[in-house]
Amino acid sequence: MVGGLRFGANSLTDTSSSSDFPAPDNKDRHTGKEMPESNQHNPGKAADPDHHSLGQHPLLASLGDAMPLREMSQDQLTDVAAEVRDVLCNLLATRTAHFASNLGVVELCLALHCEFDFREDRLVWDTGHQIYPHKLVTGRYHDFPSIRTQGGLMGYPNPAESPYDLFMTGHAGCSVSTAIGLRSGDVLMKQPGRKSVAVIGDGAFPSGIVFEALNNAGELDDDLTIVLNDNKMSICHRVGAVASYLDKLRVNPFYSGLKSEVVKLLDHVPMFGDPAERFLAQMKEGVKAGLLGGMLFEELGIRYVGPIDGHDVGLMRKYLKMARESSGPMLLHVVTEKGHGYKPAAEDPVYFHTPPAFTNVDATEETAPKSDGNPPYTLHARDAIRRKMTTNDKVTIITAAMCQGNKLEPVREQFPDRFFDVGICESHAVAFAAGQCKTGMRPIVDIYSTFLQRSYDQIFQEVALQDLPVVFMLDRAGLTGPDGPTHHGLFDIGYMRVFPNMVCMAPGYASELEPMLDFALDHDHPTSIRYPKASALELDHAPAKVEIGKSETLREGKDGTIVAFGAILDQALEAAQRLEGELDIQVINARFVKPIDHEMVKQVVESGNFVITAEEGARMGGFGSALLESAVEQRLDTRMITVLALPDEFIHHGDRGDLLDQHGLSCAAIMQACRDQACLNPVCNS
Amino acid sequence: MVGGLRFGANSLTDTSSSSDFPAPDNKDRHTGKEMPESNQHNPGKAADPDHHSLGQHPLLASLGDAMPLREMSQDQLTDVAAEVRDVLCNLLATRTAHFASNLGVVELCLALHCEFDFREDRLVWDTGHQIYPHKLVTGRYHDFPSIRTQGGLMGYPNPAESPYDLFMTGHAGCSVSTAIGLRSGDVLMKQPGRKSVAVIGDGAFPSGIVFEALNNAGELDDDLTIVLNDNKMSICHRVGAVASYLDKLRVNPFYSGLKSEVVKLLDHVPMFGDPAERFLAQMKEGVKAGLLGGMLFEELGIRYVGPIDGHDVGLMRKYLKMARESSGPMLLHVVTEKGHGYKPAAEDPVYFHTPPAFTNVDATEETAPKSDGNPPYTLHARDAIRRKMTTNDKVTIITAAMCQGNKLEPVREQFPDRFFDVGICESHAVAFAAGQCKTGMRPIVDIYSTFLQRSYDQIFQEVALQDLPVVFMLDRAGLTGPDGPTHHGLFDIGYMRVFPNMVCMAPGYASELEPMLDFALDHDHPTSIRYPKASALELDHAPAKVEIGKSETLREGKDGTIVAFGAILDQALEAAQRLEGELDIQVINARFVKPIDHEMVKQVVESGNFVITAEEGARMGGFGSALLESAVEQRLDTRMITVLALPDEFIHHGDRGDLLDQHGLSCAAIMQACRDQACLNPVCNS
Repeated sequence: MVGGLRFGANSLTDTSSSSDFPAPDNKDRHTGKEMPESNQHNPGKAADPDHHSLGQHPLLASLGDAMPLREMSQDQLTDVAAEVRDVLCNLLATRTAHFASNLGVVELCLALHCEFDFREDRLVWDTGHQIYPHKLVTGRYHDFPSIRTQGGLMGYPNPAESPYDLFMTGHAGCSVSTAIGLRSGDVLMKQPGRKSVAVIGDGAFPSGIVFEALNNAGELDDDLTIVLNDNKMSICHRVGAVASYLDKLRVNPFYSGLKSEVVKLLDHVPMFGDPAERFLAQMKEGVKAGLLGGMLFEELGIRYVGPIDGHDVGLMRKYLKMARESSGPMLLHVVTEKGHGYKPAAEDPVYFHTPPAFTNVDATEETAPKSDGNPPYTLHARDAIRRKMTTNDKVTIITAAMCQGNKLEPVREQFPDRFFDVGICESHAVAFAAGQCKTGMRPIVDIYSTFLQRSYDQIFQEVALQDLPVVFMLDRAGLTGPDGPTHHGLFDIGYMRVFPNMVCMAPGYASELEPMLDFALDHDHPTSIRYPKASALELDHAPAKVEIGKSETLREGKDGTIVAFGAILDQALEAAQRLEGELDIQVINARFVKPIDHEMVKQVVESGNFVITAEEGARMGGFGSALLESAVEQRLDTRMITVLALPDEFIHHGDRGDLLDQHGLSCAAIMQACRDQACLNPVCNS
Repeated sequence: MVGGLRFGANSLTDTSSSSDFPAPDNKDRHTGKEMPESNQHNPGKAADPDHHSLGQHPLLASLGDAMPLREMSQDQLTDVAAEVRDVLCNLLATRTAHFASNLGVVELCLALHCEFDFREDRLVWDTGHQIYPHKLVTGRYHDFPSIRTQGGLMGYPNPAESPYDLFMTGHAGCSVSTAIGLRSGDVLMKQPGRKSVAVIGDGAFPSGIVFEALNNAGELDDDLTIVLNDNKMSICHRVGAVASYLDKLRVNPFYSGLKSEVVKLLDHVPMFGDPAERFLAQMKEGVKAGLLGGMLFEELGIRYVGPIDGHDVGLMRKYLKMARESSGPMLLHVVTEKGHGYKPAAEDPVYFHTPPAFTNVDATEETAPKSDGNPPYTLHARDAIRRKMTTNDKVTIITAAMCQGNKLEPVREQFPDRFFDVGICESHAVAFAAGQCKTGMRPIVDIYSTFLQRSYDQIFQEVALQDLPVVFMLDRAGLTGPDGPTHHGLFDIGYMRVFPNMVCMAPGYASELEPMLDFALDHDHPTSIRYPKASALELDHAPAKVEIGKSETLREGKDGTIVAFGAILDQALEAAQRLEGELDIQVINARFVKPIDHEMVKQVVESGNFVITAEEGARMGGFGSALLESAVEQRLDTRMITVLALPDEFIHHGDRGDLLDQHGLSCAAIMQACRDQACLNPVCNS
């Protein structure tokens, strides 16, 4: 038992009733949201990764893989579902993790594993943060306490963990494409018996690539099952016409029986000669379509079945069996409740998407204090955006379903007419911004670094080529911690700076973010500002005026220079400070990677002392490379330059600080680099 | 009059009859395709940019902008259409250009300008290669002979030419997004009277971003007209479920009148109490939907109207007026004939998409000889792919609607089961390939460099992160000539090499392309091979074995080194040869940018002689930067390194050779760089 929650084997519950998990009786002090009791006591116990001993979940503990599920009775499956929810709630007591989405797919996951054998068949979980139940029933129950900790299980599918995981996913919408590819490959490999299933949420569904995949699936006409997991949410409440359409499908009053009778009747309407026959045939099809729903899919050659109750394992098994046995592409529309089985989560699935750990009483999404207590860049960005929108009615803000992650709710409230959430449609977001910009508005596109990758071509064509002053705010630019490689934002320095007309900035501390945004909104060309998911350094220092291509020297020093681009400045300053007495280090806040401060480059490289560049991004083509390009163009001797950046490998999940340390970007690592360089330095050697 | 074609003012024709332009009586000697007579004589006259004097097109010549069209009679508009077609056919006699698509939209273009005032209203031409009629009626008739020549009009929309062009386009699918953005901006700017129109072809329509835009448009519910220009083609015959769906809409036998009568009747069916009323309402809607068609759009909240005849100006004006006056988003489905008005083009629109100039009897798409007579890389790539598919039945080939551009028709013929054209859906293409790869197949993704930008995120997540051995063939990687900035492929070196696991190659001459493909197919990780739209250098030289990260020295020399990455090697070798006697230049064929040949870098930089890198790509983050990264990591003195690459600007259209020369990458420019460096060189100075 953890806290006051009735977890563990003794509390196996009927998953169909959401009231079986008691509603917490206390509230979050910042948000007024109800919090479970465990929020306030027993943190030590809850944080113990072994807190759910094997004995508590006998069914899960016994599953070496998913095969035994196929032999289980309905009652046993219900018990498994309860055990899964118990594990999920226990987990949430220890750390922040994807929660509501996982509670929602428990029964769907079980039904899939009952009707398919995914050691042979192909299962792709779109987006992937709803993978926990799947991990628990595919042999990873015993390792589960390690999830989202460094070296432990990933919070997303990971082929390295299990053959049941085919693709490491994290970005939305690609599952249908990969499932079609898998099917195509299996047929070519003469293994047509292997079936392909994509499970995709309604939030991911409007992503452009899904439409591209449906267009191809309808033509190839291969066997394919697409499970549309409709929980009426992405992370925030979803938006867009597809969402409204699914709403319509769900409320179809003729779903349960009457309509199928009518369709049968229509099938008996006699046919006459042309053209009356054609007319009647057409009318019949029209009536059927209107009654049966799903025309959006049917028109593309995808058979539509649904909506069905996604918490009824038996019903889902029936339809999944049908899908497995029928030929051609089929979409099964399954309605689930995000947070199902845990009342607070079902009632507030936005908050419970990735809620703070119950044990961390200070961890609220609103203030999100970090270990050093400073608010994160995200909040500074949000507040700066809000102020710009207050003073300038030309400024709009565009998000791609990340209103919550970007903390933009208050902006949405205050400026509903200038706030645009386009859903998980990053390509559209950027082209839409370009259109707005052309009319004289000043759109700010606020998208995570890794997700903006989906707009590469629109940044190129719709923004940079037109030289439109769209402002890109790249949140999560750097290591994002426990989410891992799909969510780290490591490539943006390279991908943004290659575009002509683009100006690329990164603030090194809290109070320069807003001046950078001011600069961007005043600048008549495209601009970008990157910042990581990290607390922002607060300096007792009024930032120097932000001038294009000008860096800022924050600390003088005669033995060598650290040029930091972006938030890693905090580590650089700390390193310089801790080296005091031993080495006298100059620290420069680069501010711009494009245009880079060529004069600064000349000065620091010509000094003859060592120069260390630091950036929280991929080494290749990044800030360090930009500095080298400048130095070589100026015919400077680059032998004393050391580039500290993230290595050419995918970086796994883990605590951001730990990851920085491992990859040579922590304060300690920068200090070491300074000492190493100082020994090579003629000044030091003399 | 040009050749035997009845062009000019004296031959104004009824555009509704495609036989008014005479069928040519001779055939292309390579393809057997019919060619117009002008193909064989009068090339000098045809090539004269002033060959259509003003007097020949009195109506077009009189149009300062599009406003007078609004006052014209139907007959006058017919005459304008004939003049436009005359200009287009004259143009084709002088140079290769987009042809069939432009012939198809003549009437649509006129109808649009009659019903909207695009000095105020917003018109976005998707993809943009159908812009010629629009240019001719918006004040650019007199400049038209310069189209697609350096310094002349662009073959795509260009805001620098005219306020009637809003976005410089070239990539497919973004028009709906930008039009929504324009509308949103105009409303916010308190100019709701300005209407937005996107014109998008059926080939571009399945692009994912269109779906993202429709999803957003349906929700925003702003006024918006989407004209779906359905010519049953993209460049090749289109594919996919959307195409089949449009086919279905077009053959609807109840289009012309009967169905609307039925709908009226249904509107008079009396309503009873619930639930019968609801049932009847539902049935009525179903019948209406089945009769009226367009449910795919209607389900997303987009009003569907059509299909209507896209060569009937009067009819289109009627519906465009309706669209202009109605509120909310509307899709007008217009059926046009690609090549309309010129029979050979209408009969073979694939060939006539961008046919060779009639005057150039040698210019056929099949052998595409260049000035130096060597076949282009594209053909070498195609032949190598074909041989791999012959010897290895695991190899598949995936194209995104560029079967023709990539010359893959024979591969499609020979291996229909392993040839996949997914349509203009690059994101899907890459994720689909990843799925195939996972089953053990070895897909080759053959996409132009600039269009592969649309798959950045899938290359990241679905391929590189999973470390799947997908082979990317990047055609058109470099300057593409007359198409201009949307089609130059300048960024791929930077965007491919940043991804962990990726190996990036470029052949420097014809006979090493196939060994590179062999290497790629043997290599168990993702690989890419880039090559430009250029004839391939043919060397009397058996290429050295392709080994990962190993360059090849093609010429020894003691005064300095040129390290060339890719096809620019031809200029480097020629430069070295022409400098013989003056300077003794080593030439290295880099082969790999990732992993770069670190040993080679060490050798050439440590030699103390100058090093010049050459690449046909963007300077920032490109091959030169990769070499600098290597040199600095090895603590080498980089002062003698010069990076020759394309500058940080969008490069306009023009002859590839001229553009290389202007940007310092021609043989002459490389020679000059060698001389400049030699003077700085201690060896030279001593």
